[in-house]
Amino acid sequence: MSYISKTNLTVRYSETDKMGIVHHSRYYPWFEISRGDFIKSFGISYNQMENDGIYMPLTETGAKYIEGVGYDEEVVITCKMVKLTVVRCEFYYEVLRASDLKLVTTGRTAHAFCDTSMKPINLKKKYPQYYEIFEKLVCGEE
Amino acid sequence: MSYISKTNLTVRYSETDKMGIVHHSRYYPWFEISRGDFIKSFGISYNQMENDGIYMPLTETGAKYIEGVGYDEEVVITCKMVKLTVVRCEFYYEVLRASDLKLVTTGRTAHAFCDTSMKPINLKKKYPQYYEIFEKLVCGEE
Amino acid sequence: MSYISKTNLTVRYSETDKMGIVHHSRYYPWFEISRGDFIKSFGISYNQMENDGIYMPLTETGAKYIEGVGYDEEVVITCKMVKLTVVRCEFYYEVLRASDLKLVTTGRTAHAFCDTSMKPINLKKKYPQYYEIFEKLVCGEE
Amino acid sequence: MSYISKTNLTVRYSETDKMGIVHHSRYYPWFEISRGDFIKSFGISYNQMENDGIYMPLTETGAKYIEGVGYDEEVVITCKMVKLTVVRCEFYYEVLRASDLKLVTTGRTAHAFCDTSMKPINLKKKYPQYYEIFEKLVCGEE
Repeated sequence: MSYISKTNLTVRYSETDKMGIVHHSRYYPWFEISRGDFIKSFGISYNQMENDGIYMPLTETGAKYIEGVGYDEEVVITCKMVKLTVVRCEFYYEVLRASDLKLVTTGRTAHAFCDTSMKPINLKKKYPQYYEIFEKLVCGEE
Repeated sequence: MSYISKTNLTVRYSETDKMGIVHHSRYYPWFEISRGDFIKSFGISYNQMENDGIYMPLTETGAKYIEGVGYDEEVVITCKMVKLTVVRCEFYYEVLRASDLKLVTTGRTAHAFCDTSMKPINLKKKYPQYYEIFEKLVCGEE
Repeated sequence: MSYISKTNLTVRYSETDKMGIVHHSRYYPWFEISRGDFIKSFGISYNQMENDGIYMPLTETGAKYIEGVGYDEEVVITCKMVKLTVVRCEFYYEVLRASDLKLVTTGRTAHAFCDTSMKPINLKKKYPQYYEIFEKLVCGEE
Repeated sequence: MSYISKTNLTVRYSETDKMGIVHHSRYYPWFEISRGDFIKSFGISYNQMENDGIYMPLTETGAKYIEGVGYDEEVVITCKMVKLTVVRCEFYYEVLRASDLKLVTTGRTAHAFCDTSMKPINLKKKYPQYYEIFEKLVCGEE
């Protein structure tokens, strides 16, 4: 199965900078929201995972910027899981302008599975119930 | 004794918004830095306080905006402690443009003394060593 | 007429700090979103106002913090206009936790009416159409 | 000539998240500060460039996270220009913990040269004085 989540957001005034468009760094919190929605679609939540002792610290982030978006514009963010091993996973994102579905930005984040003291864990061994859900969600590379 | 701390900062691009000046919300992290420098001047640090089990959550914040400042402008932030009781304290801040010392913004924050589970504590009873330092630093109202 | 807008938000991971709850400064962008929604309810938008040459820079902000809220919690933000003169206006906000409608934070912002060069303007004289809408929306003090 | 700039920063409380360390998105504003310092070392400033009508919007950003850093820790950020053509350039960054010079994060940003209406320009043709400075600063790939 290949699942893609969709999240709608409206650009906040505080997310713009003096260039008049969304500051490049503020796409990363959007990816994070989108990733949270992706996970939530399957009856689990990232908050619950942290409470259960699983952290997913970021090991890599990246974004390509195609268009700028301005204050009060609505965007749609899609997220899919593009890689999964027992110790790490990767997500891919697209930000589209809602009005014309023009591609604005793409992104990618890589994560390690860690315990509460930020030591790497084997998710399949320690939390097979989570790993099984992720295994169903992951799709091939875009 | 009445002590006033001084902190120099340069406006970050990411702190501006589409109006071309620093977003009003971004003065509060500046006050926080200034407050940290105030505390640090006396050989203690807010980080150390948190490690010792003392939190100072904010109960009130406020700011008045007189002038805007733009990207790459240098500002000076002053901080003083204007109130102290055994359960709470208040700080007052001024942000000045470094080039001409024109007053840009004033601010005020109120804090409770709490333990790690965010329960209010009597600082004088539980941590007399910190209370004594604060007692020396507090000054009358501006 | 006394109008109150309602805005629903979910706490972003990036809005929390090491205390585990939403950083005090991040309520101000929430107030801003809520204010935008308030204005939008009447068929105008703050974006349109800026395009028409009206800016509403902040002259004062303030907040009182009653409870903390954590990652992924849903909040409701209400906004009303509590003061209006021909040169300035004020808004009042309440942030409630959605699950139990417990009051989390209250806020207040004051704004000047300015032109594109940030010079104060008399809104009633220069833009009577906007002033008339605002006049219908303003309510007495809370 | 191969020039590397150095910028010292102290982690702000507001830059941490509930994991207790700097949020991954907040390294990008640090890279931006570091890039500004890089440019400033040569008697020009990014602010001056924007006033002269040259914008450098980001086309790509990326970071790798090796270690976390916490509140009040001091870091050193190095920046160098690793690519330059007449229409674009790239920078590479390293964030080191100041206390032990341990590598915390590396980053990379790509920029287009644009005019005030965000149309691409040939920097060498339109602003040879800036291009010449950049040409002196660029170094080979790290």
